[in-house]
Amino acid sequence: MSSSAVPAYRRMSVEQRREQLLAAALDLFGHRRPEDVSIEDVAAAAGVSRPLVYRYFPGGKQQLYEAAVLGAAEELTGRFAVPAEGPPTQRLSDALDSYLAYVDAHDAAYGALLRGGSVVGTSRTDAIVDGVRRSAAEQVLRHLGVAEPGLRLSLMVRSWIASVEAVSLLWLDNGKQPPLPELRGWLVDHFTALLVATAATEPEAAEAAALALSQETDESPGRVLLDRITSLFP
Amino acid sequence: MSSSAVPAYRRMSVEQRREQLLAAALDLFGHRRPEDVSIEDVAAAAGVSRPLVYRYFPGGKQQLYEAAVLGAAEELTGRFAVPAEGPPTQRLSDALDSYLAYVDAHDAAYGALLRGGSVVGTSRTDAIVDGVRRSAAEQVLRHLGVAEPGLRLSLMVRSWIASVEAVSLLWLDNGKQPPLPELRGWLVDHFTALLVATAATEPEAAEAAALALSQETDESPGRVLLDRITSLFP
Repeated sequence: MSSSAVPAYRRMSVEQRREQLLAAALDLFGHRRPEDVSIEDVAAAAGVSRPLVYRYFPGGKQQLYEAAVLGAAEELTGRFAVPAEGPPTQRLSDALDSYLAYVDAHDAAYGALLRGGSVVGTSRTDAIVDGVRRSAAEQVLRHLGVAEPGLRLSLMVRSWIASVEAVSLLWLDNGKQPPLPELRGWLVDHFTALLVATAATEPEAAEAAALALSQETDESPGRVLLDRITSLFP
Repeated sequence: MSSSAVPAYRRMSVEQRREQLLAAALDLFGHRRPEDVSIEDVAAAAGVSRPLVYRYFPGGKQQLYEAAVLGAAEELTGRFAVPAEGPPTQRLSDALDSYLAYVDAHDAAYGALLRGGSVVGTSRTDAIVDGVRRSAAEQVLRHLGVAEPGLRLSLMVRSWIASVEAVSLLWLDNGKQPPLPELRGWLVDHFTALLVATAATEPEAAEAAALALSQETDESPGRVLLDRITSLFP
């Protein structure tokens, strides 16, 4: 973004200015080790003065970092909120499209958020990131009609979410190949496969899988995968 | 470990002493934030003097931390090395047994290794941990008879390895429930399911899955899961 694209200093509302500072900070934290980012850098990137940054974030870099992490976390959490209608694997596909679009648009920030290992990372920021995972898992389970999952189903969903994160980071490392729709398709297939495998040995998962299957259509991702599997292993 | 169990000061070989210091350091790093661990703490835990620790690790805490991470990484990498004989999912099961036994025995150190977020974590230690993942993936692919995997198969295996890590950490958080053999069984099932799903849409994976299937026996984990799935979704 060129600095000429930044609206003039006094035109922003308090909320807009705060968002702008957070976005600038998260972008910087994504491109450099957070210990190498100063309040001056954030001010320069946002085209404002250093005192203005401190007016919004009196706690300095630590507060700015935590707020930026929290903002990214809320954004990512929201991406998993899709309407509870249609085939469940299609809903998952839509949620992933939205999640991966964030990863694509905020690549450096996403990497910084999840790769951790920085001096300003704290148990609070770890907890925020973990909160995103929990929330995503809860939303996935809600779409499966499971309110209080047992250990196995719960670990299965968390394990899938961990693999979404890992695959997203590897995708960034790999120059964003394959194209997003393909990556999203793979991840939805992974979920379907894990659910089926879990259903094969766990009654709660079997019930959830049967319910999901009853809502699938001929063209929904889960049904398409299962048809392909049965034709491969007749 | 009580200090009375530590062999007397002069009885250890250089290699034994080095290993003892590394084990003490990794244990401490696992139980406290690394920035709260001092060389004095390591010396006290190992029952030796501070200068002795510096004689082995002149670079101080940073060097000790990196060496401890490298030691743990080599140990974990070795756990995935199982003989290339028998049903592939049984080999995977054996490798996981060995890997999870490490997680169980070195719980705090494993958590410290993977949770990161510490001031002494560096790009070098990140690279070491990433090396474990790469090596584990290569070993898994070798057992599948795949020397140069395409993007999809490669990402599938990496995604499974990420989920093994995540599930291991959740298992530690969950007071080590379920019992290890059950957890290991779930993770092997996850792998089988992911391979089948990938095989359904990718020729290279289909070839690897067919080869693996031809080596399975009636009682091997992969075959048992597939039989259960086909009886569940006839």
